Amino acid sequence: MNIAGTHYETIWLDEQNPQQVQVIDQTQLPFRFRTKALQSSLDVYNAIKGMTVRGAPLIGVTAAFGIYLSALHAGAGTWKKEIDKAAKKIGSARPTAVNLVAALEKVVEITNTATFRMEAVEKSLNASLDLLEKERENSRRIGEYGLPLIRKVYEKTGRPVNILTHCNAGWLACIDYGTATAPIYLAHDQGIPLHLWVDETRPRNQGARLTAFELGEHGVPHTVITDNAGGHLMQHGKVDMVLVGSDRTTRGGDVTNKIGTYLKALSASDNRVPFYVALPTSSIDPHLEDGLKQVPIEERDAGEVKTLEGWDEKSKSIRRITLTPTGSPALNPGFDVTPARLITALITEKGTCRANPVEIASLLKNA
Amino acid sequence: MNIAGTHYETIWLDEQNPQQVQVIDQTQLPFRFRTKALQSSLDVYNAIKGMTVRGAPLIGVTAAFGIYLSALHAGAGTWKKEIDKAAKKIGSARPTAVNLVAALEKVVEITNTATFRMEAVEKSLNASLDLLEKERENSRRIGEYGLPLIRKVYEKTGRPVNILTHCNAGWLACIDYGTATAPIYLAHDQGIPLHLWVDETRPRNQGARLTAFELGEHGVPHTVITDNAGGHLMQHGKVDMVLVGSDRTTRGGDVTNKIGTYLKALSASDNRVPFYVALPTSSIDPHLEDGLKQVPIEERDAGEVKTLEGWDEKSKSIRRITLTPTGSPALNPGFDVTPARLITALITEKGTCRANPVEIASLLKNA
Repeated sequence: MNIAGTHYETIWLDEQNPQQVQVIDQTQLPFRFRTKALQSSLDVYNAIKGMTVRGAPLIGVTAAFGIYLSALHAGAGTWKKEIDKAAKKIGSARPTAVNLVAALEKVVEITNTATFRMEAVEKSLNASLDLLEKERENSRRIGEYGLPLIRKVYEKTGRPVNILTHCNAGWLACIDYGTATAPIYLAHDQGIPLHLWVDETRPRNQGARLTAFELGEHGVPHTVITDNAGGHLMQHGKVDMVLVGSDRTTRGGDVTNKIGTYLKALSASDNRVPFYVALPTSSIDPHLEDGLKQVPIEERDAGEVKTLEGWDEKSKSIRRITLTPTGSPALNPGFDVTPARLITALITEKGTCRANPVEIASLLKNA
Repeated sequence: MNIAGTHYETIWLDEQNPQQVQVIDQTQLPFRFRTKALQSSLDVYNAIKGMTVRGAPLIGVTAAFGIYLSALHAGAGTWKKEIDKAAKKIGSARPTAVNLVAALEKVVEITNTATFRMEAVEKSLNASLDLLEKERENSRRIGEYGLPLIRKVYEKTGRPVNILTHCNAGWLACIDYGTATAPIYLAHDQGIPLHLWVDETRPRNQGARLTAFELGEHGVPHTVITDNAGGHLMQHGKVDMVLVGSDRTTRGGDVTNKIGTYLKALSASDNRVPFYVALPTSSIDPHLEDGLKQVPIEERDAGEVKTLEGWDEKSKSIRRITLTPTGSPALNPGFDVTPARLITALITEKGTCRANPVEIASLLKNA
């Protein structure tokens, strides 16, 4: 989508130097717009681990390019082993993201059909570019399947459609369009009036920093709220629908997404507000039935709770301040599970369906 | 309760100079411990408005002292008018707190029985001290009525009782003991092992700053979490009960408390975790039936959402950083309403009861 009027995607092969991959450094947003060049599989590991890139689809594509960069620098006789090692390392960067491992497995499988190193380089690059194209197309399709849900509300009420979103399931988490935001951008570009409630999404504030940034840059009206405020807004009829992403979805329809999503789903259910989850079907894990019992929840560093990063106007720099007493410990679960019973529908690149095993299985059979 | 081993209350008449009232400056906690002298009704207005003092009971007592300070500096012939003016001004400092207006009305009524100014000074001082004593006693009694609820869990499980709390309904919000924390301090002092989950409570982070501070200083084990995390913890059996305060309670049992309380109540209900609200009966407004329809919700400054204050280690000072893009607006509702149906019981200085009109009316008849 647009940043200051120019179209961007989140990751691209450097035109001047195709031995490196460019990404937007999302740790600097919204305060500074900077790109970062990734030149090795270690760069890719660090970019995923340190959240220079984040969001399930973007993580998958970045990981794929990591295999390409690994092949590029591997020895003629050791490239298979080196690629395996790189895949293992990159796969460990974020334990909850199922796309990460799936993308790596696929690209490694294709790459391993090569008979010599330069062929492996070419195959891994093409596989990465194919995945990028597929993810871009997935987002666009999610947008097209989600668009009628927004249009319907607008046609019924004749006033701007109020949509609440949590975390960043925006184009910054994908290649373009986003998942949760894809229907929003498509609706906005078609002239349907919208207004987004953006949960700030502590502890890392991806909502306040990234979602607010990308909506603002693309011209979509929005208001930032604390994670505490959504329930109150729903009680007072200020939310027409909730639209979030998913990091991992079970075949039963349980959704693992950024911590706090479950609380919004409870509130939506209590106030009869539709709760939609937008996701590529690649995030559906067919081996999982019960999200609460089976999905491991990443426990992140307590420092993310005890401190917070923002722009310090005095020093004109990004500064991290302390929020808690020195002696107080903190706990930082990164995700929670929203049970299928609280979800109105899933919006995927293959169409929409209810969050239950039968409809999900049927949807997955679509081309 | 204790700060660094010394017993403190939140407000006291200065022993050296009884023409001023001392309070703990809560805007500086937990980074610096400072007291502030209030010398006029304008000081009191500013202290309440700027949240140097906060929490329904403490606001009420501080407001009462404001009438005393007004009488102290009033003209011999104009004191009635000046007191009325001061009461009106102080009463406007925080629109949602019902204790504030109730305390002012009571002290003004008593003061107005005086026939000359010095008598008004004496009467307003005594009325303020009586209110302080009453609030301290209320908190202690809330503690005693709540204590068996905690003991019961401990006797059943034999392991530390996990209690989740939101915002600060601690002794810093009262004179001593607190409301939600009163049963906790009593249980702790009796040797019942406890562990508190402390919601940070954006936007002002009273949980991360004040509740964590007071629990830590008194030696109660606790862990700070984001406001997003409580639902996840409840889903995994990590919370034995939720215990929060109330700024305003309807006679039907709807509770207006810090924004986000409603989301925790929904989650408690969904996971069959008892949800208790501790409050002085003075916060029950007999004129209100339906909290959602009748309680005005204070909309605070958007800057509280767009920025956050914390300790900057580099400059060794409290610093406010920006969290959102410059062009993104924010909305900041200060409270939400938790419907009575989600509340297991109310814990008051007159005893405990279910949150329904019959039991509340019956409880209010108790001495």
